[in-house]
Amino acid sequence: MTILGPEVAERPSATLRGAIVSGAMATRRSFWAWGLEGEEPTETDRAKRAEELSRRYGTTITPAPLPDLAQAALRPPRVRVPEALQAVCATDPWERAFHSHGSHFTDRTHAFNLRFENPTDVVAHPRTEAELTAVLDWCSTTDAKVVPFGAGSSVVWGVNPPVADRVVTIAMDRFDQVLEIDAVSLAARIQAGIYGPALEDQLRPHGFTLRHFPQSFRFSTLGGWIATRSGGHYATNHTHIDDFVESVRMLTPQGWWESRRLPGSGAGPSPDRMVIGSEGILGVITEAWMRIQRRPTFRATAGIVFPSWTAGADAVRQIVQAKLWPANCRILDPVEAGRAAGLDGTQTLVIVGFESADVSQRHNIGVAVELARGAGGVVDDSAVSVDDGRGQPTGRGGAVGAWRDAFIGVGPGLDTSLGLVADTFETAITWDRWPEFDSVVRTKVGAALREVFGSTAELSCRFTHVYPDGPAPYYTWFGMGKQGSELTQWAEIKHAAAEAVLAAGGTITHHHAVGRMHRPQYDRQRPDLFAEALRAAKRAVDPNGLLNPGVLIDP
Amino acid sequence: MTILGPEVAERPSATLRGAIVSGAMATRRSFWAWGLEGEEPTETDRAKRAEELSRRYGTTITPAPLPDLAQAALRPPRVRVPEALQAVCATDPWERAFHSHGSHFTDRTHAFNLRFENPTDVVAHPRTEAELTAVLDWCSTTDAKVVPFGAGSSVVWGVNPPVADRVVTIAMDRFDQVLEIDAVSLAARIQAGIYGPALEDQLRPHGFTLRHFPQSFRFSTLGGWIATRSGGHYATNHTHIDDFVESVRMLTPQGWWESRRLPGSGAGPSPDRMVIGSEGILGVITEAWMRIQRRPTFRATAGIVFPSWTAGADAVRQIVQAKLWPANCRILDPVEAGRAAGLDGTQTLVIVGFESADVSQRHNIGVAVELARGAGGVVDDSAVSVDDGRGQPTGRGGAVGAWRDAFIGVGPGLDTSLGLVADTFETAITWDRWPEFDSVVRTKVGAALREVFGSTAELSCRFTHVYPDGPAPYYTWFGMGKQGSELTQWAEIKHAAAEAVLAAGGTITHHHAVGRMHRPQYDRQRPDLFAEALRAAKRAVDPNGLLNPGVLIDP
Repeated sequence: MTILGPEVAERPSATLRGAIVSGAMATRRSFWAWGLEGEEPTETDRAKRAEELSRRYGTTITPAPLPDLAQAALRPPRVRVPEALQAVCATDPWERAFHSHGSHFTDRTHAFNLRFENPTDVVAHPRTEAELTAVLDWCSTTDAKVVPFGAGSSVVWGVNPPVADRVVTIAMDRFDQVLEIDAVSLAARIQAGIYGPALEDQLRPHGFTLRHFPQSFRFSTLGGWIATRSGGHYATNHTHIDDFVESVRMLTPQGWWESRRLPGSGAGPSPDRMVIGSEGILGVITEAWMRIQRRPTFRATAGIVFPSWTAGADAVRQIVQAKLWPANCRILDPVEAGRAAGLDGTQTLVIVGFESADVSQRHNIGVAVELARGAGGVVDDSAVSVDDGRGQPTGRGGAVGAWRDAFIGVGPGLDTSLGLVADTFETAITWDRWPEFDSVVRTKVGAALREVFGSTAELSCRFTHVYPDGPAPYYTWFGMGKQGSELTQWAEIKHAAAEAVLAAGGTITHHHAVGRMHRPQYDRQRPDLFAEALRAAKRAVDPNGLLNPGVLIDP
Repeated sequence: MTILGPEVAERPSATLRGAIVSGAMATRRSFWAWGLEGEEPTETDRAKRAEELSRRYGTTITPAPLPDLAQAALRPPRVRVPEALQAVCATDPWERAFHSHGSHFTDRTHAFNLRFENPTDVVAHPRTEAELTAVLDWCSTTDAKVVPFGAGSSVVWGVNPPVADRVVTIAMDRFDQVLEIDAVSLAARIQAGIYGPALEDQLRPHGFTLRHFPQSFRFSTLGGWIATRSGGHYATNHTHIDDFVESVRMLTPQGWWESRRLPGSGAGPSPDRMVIGSEGILGVITEAWMRIQRRPTFRATAGIVFPSWTAGADAVRQIVQAKLWPANCRILDPVEAGRAAGLDGTQTLVIVGFESADVSQRHNIGVAVELARGAGGVVDDSAVSVDDGRGQPTGRGGAVGAWRDAFIGVGPGLDTSLGLVADTFETAITWDRWPEFDSVVRTKVGAALREVFGSTAELSCRFTHVYPDGPAPYYTWFGMGKQGSELTQWAEIKHAAAEAVLAAGGTITHHHAVGRMHRPQYDRQRPDLFAEALRAAKRAVDPNGLLNPGVLIDP
């Protein structure tokens, strides 16, 4: 067992607020764009982009000037921070503005336009469990609602302040250490507020990885992943954060909730599974023992082209049902395969990848390719690469490489408030209902998109995860809307999409969480009696209803 | 989608009570032995066994005559069955005796001796959801406590009636059908009361299997597996019933709780995970959509001998951490390997097996054997067998075959009340703590065994499941005790074992459940606030506390 640092209570405090604490990247987050302040687009960038869009859509788009937070009229804090907590609480505009929203299209649009109608009053950055306890006690005394905050990557209004008399946001970014590594059991005790890159940075020197890479990886935290049932980047077998949790420690208004560190247990319903997905309504997660892995050195990847979306999906189903357990098993529909990988607009791209720290994956990729060929796939030999641990790069060329780059390159606010409206929605559905589901969803959402955006609309799909019993489809849509009307236009499509998913039998979210955005559909999806049970469970640990009201359930 | 039978409400009622409903085996269960009435040992069998034990232990054991239920003084039922429910309720001695206990050593000892001190009052066998609702409504009206009953394989006093004024046991054995098969998604809708063999019998003609084989398989039900987080026979990756549940339908005193059928979801804490492991305290499970599999045709197995327990355990750890995901990955300690497979008493036996419906497992067994050799294992070439789907039997010979036979051959009551005291206990622990855990547990339990049974005691261990982060050890013990004192002698060892497991950091149960037996340790293992949350959740769905009081939590 490697003990990496002093115990939490003794650690020196970090010195930066709301910043990435990992080495060279120690600079402040943009309060409106997905990125650091230094990565925000310039006025020139945005003017160029506006021109480009104007040309493409035959219209005239005028970019507003970049927002100046000094101009924001933030409601003054409605609660006074007691002397004893002033060292860990902030009330300045950047702190309050940045911590009053997540990273959804609507959040970024509001923030860009300096519309902070319901900002949080105070942002606490406790550095120790004792400080966290003191903050929560204070909130309880002053009857302030509490929003636990990881890194603000929520796309479901999970961290936006509720309507209440007083709101305190508890930012967990000071809980940023890997505390212990158990190299024998492959597990680590990790603080909940650590950002993805810092987590990997701290495991890497020891030869390990958590190997959990949601698309929000750069700006999301372990605690956030646990609270929202993060999906991770990998496509099959163990990829969800749910699978990696060995035990959890969480502070509730009634005290500590901590499970025993165990590889498995059949002792009653799993306590951890009640915490996983609780979205901050039961408590504030402070740390967890997580299952980690040795860093993979063996890799094998193939990109396979199919003549149709249906044929590709069927191949993916066969591969996952054969339980080959590829690390990656993606499928891009013809629209996405055209856009991201340069295919012809009718073909579907399937990407299969295997990884291991111990064993060559040459055999596995061979079996997967054979299955895919049997299902009608065409595999370009140059699109199959095998790395047997000798370090040559793999899968970086051709269609696979193009798609990787597109996945990683999330734009930092170039398009905000230029009239372009864009979002994604994701779900899961069993294979038997999948073709009909896809058809119905595309029809309904497509109609709404045409209604709102005319011919500028695009709708596409890929699978982010595949299970033996069904895929997790991930739809992306955008359309050229009207500057200033982006939010109402977004709301029309969102409503159509969410209702279509629900009516066709899917889940309202596979890995984006419920937050406040998905409540209308979630309320019809979950068993009513489960909601009653969850409400009662919440009352048991949070009798005054302090924590994240409006998320998942009403009091 | 194949609809297999008429809907529940229309199905004709079964004609046998508490019996295996699967074809040729339709005969009544023994009320005291693990088996059917026709399989009970004869007086001659038991006399022979007593003589054998007397000789082995140098003592004189006198078998009591076989029990005659007509001689049992069962307290008269304390509640009158209303007219409308008389067709589905039974109060005769066999029904009440059989349904008043599970299959633990203590249960069988009590039953053999006709000690039914707290029998259930009425046994209901509802055939439809409407009848189940009517029974539960009646229990509510008459304030009878309710014990849901699958097949009575509990070894933790999970189905023994609580101390109460009135108790109704609801036996679910009429809910015995596979209702639908979704061959595309590999899932089936299955009624909760179906016994293991009947479930497999109904899937087999369609080419499928649930592939969930707990040791209690023959006399346990799907609903019981879900309610107790059954572990299954397979050793790695997806083996727990938890992994196979796609959705659950459950009747609570407040009405129906049913989840949406989904391959995955991130919408709040999992409703199913609150049901899984709830041990009958939240409701009565009536059916579930379960993930099924195509019947495997490719197999590969190897038996590997290690010079020591430590070396074998280390090899098993390496295999599971390499994520080869063998279906089987067992290890028998020198005592078990000697007893079950004829090894020399110092060697450890590791059995690794792979299975697939789609792909040859020749490569995987090769990799596993190579890893095992690298870890010091000796693999007899005759102990490696590969079946590439051409149907030859595999792994039936040598040490592997001997072990299989021992696993399957559970004795039907030959030893009961002859003074031999025997039990098992199982747990899970992370690898870093495993060697010390094993040492401490063997020392403490060994001391208790010697104290009670002197030199006749034996203690041995195998792993039933292995995870990348730790094993699930399964300890077996027995000793020659004193006829008539078996129960107090058992209690001494049980106490020592449970306390040792808890103190050394393990879980009080990995797959046997909590029931009423493990409460003292469970109460110290689970987070206190989780217990508060669970208690509150129970009150929300069972406000009058009808369901299985004393299991998991107190009201």
